[in-house]
Amino acid sequence: MYRDSNKRTLLKTVTWRITATATTTILVFVFTGAIDTAIQVGLLELLAKMLFYYLHERGWDKVKWGKEEVPAFVLWITGIPCSGKTTLATMIREELAKDKLRVQHLDSHDVRPLFPETGFSKEEVDNHIKRVGHLASMLEKNGIITIASFVSPYRDSRLFVRNLCRNYIEVHLNTTVEVARKYDRNGFYKKVDEGIYKNVPGVDVEYETCDNTEYTLDMTRKNLEEAKREIIQFLKNKYLK
Amino acid sequence: MYRDSNKRTLLKTVTWRITATATTTILVFVFTGAIDTAIQVGLLELLAKMLFYYLHERGWDKVKWGKEEVPAFVLWITGIPCSGKTTLATMIREELAKDKLRVQHLDSHDVRPLFPETGFSKEEVDNHIKRVGHLASMLEKNGIITIASFVSPYRDSRLFVRNLCRNYIEVHLNTTVEVARKYDRNGFYKKVDEGIYKNVPGVDVEYETCDNTEYTLDMTRKNLEEAKREIIQFLKNKYLK
Repeated sequence: MYRDSNKRTLLKTVTWRITATATTTILVFVFTGAIDTAIQVGLLELLAKMLFYYLHERGWDKVKWGKEEVPAFVLWITGIPCSGKTTLATMIREELAKDKLRVQHLDSHDVRPLFPETGFSKEEVDNHIKRVGHLASMLEKNGIITIASFVSPYRDSRLFVRNLCRNYIEVHLNTTVEVARKYDRNGFYKKVDEGIYKNVPGVDVEYETCDNTEYTLDMTRKNLEEAKREIIQFLKNKYLK
Repeated sequence: MYRDSNKRTLLKTVTWRITATATTTILVFVFTGAIDTAIQVGLLELLAKMLFYYLHERGWDKVKWGKEEVPAFVLWITGIPCSGKTTLATMIREELAKDKLRVQHLDSHDVRPLFPETGFSKEEVDNHIKRVGHLASMLEKNGIITIASFVSPYRDSRLFVRNLCRNYIEVHLNTTVEVARKYDRNGFYKKVDEGIYKNVPGVDVEYETCDNTEYTLDMTRKNLEEAKREIIQFLKNKYLK
């Protein structure tokens, strides 16, 4: 929640006073033809109205009426490992921040280290995703635009998150393991090949698609810049007026 | 995040214009002695400045500078079952809402049903509390005052939450099982007696106190109304200017 600082109100008082006193002085001059009267009225008005304006603004800052919540949503980015989720989420967050929107990015690489006990079995992944979804829905409910980037390969837990959120937008980065390997900078697929990582969606377990995904991006044919542009356009058309 | 609606700006335009045009009209009359000139200037100013004021406000609404985040905190209420946590949290939330503060209440009775797989072993409780703490810290980080009411009997997980949050305020409802039983409306302790509930803090597992709890309330001697007043006063002195 935001409130106006005293400095903000003072600066608004000054910018408004310049506009307003100029108007008055010109009007008085036009009507009376007397430049000295015009300036005297202008000067007195300058002082009297700066004070009144400041008090008027401080009073209104206490009134909540007419302060509208910016509509929030949960942008849920899903896809196999190394499909570009984190990078895309970061690009979208930066783009939205340019419009002074408040955005929280929840990323698997930040959340999982906090809960090292969470494993990669279907059950553990589902419970993890459900809890992240609950977090996302609470942020959304409080007016925070939330971008979540998680592999989230299972239909059930994604549906659970969808049902918790008000405006849930699922974006599937649809790609193949062959293409994903090209973007793999941390040797993830090497560890898969060596048998260190198990239960890897797209490799030894299925990535389950949904029929009602809001946006599917074919990442075998698009780069991340194109993907970002498409999603931003989609959000501007449907969710951000 | 909030923004001003067009209606709000229009109403501000009108309330300001009444104050301001009256000032101008009186000033012009005092300086010129001509009531007709005073009224003519007043009327023209009325129209010209309403338009300018409206545009000035809409412009400022796009400027984020000087809009301060209301300082947020996490009020973590802990104590054995039926010590009054949920009721106290609700009372505090309602009191803060009177001051137009944005508050999210996270309660064990709301969160646990979403994750029925969560059991009551120390390990499960600790992981549950850590995840709720992560949620609370994310809300706090985004400017939402958060009140959490959870038994949270173990020191380790409460310390984990403390370290995640910026302003963490731990309130311990310190009471005995004998007193707690009097407030037990849902037959919780009956099920404990029947051996249906196990791992109950204060009964068969220890409730672990902390040395650095911000506020401890002796609930064997205080009622909830007194507890609420004390906590509100504490918050007003230290966290809400």
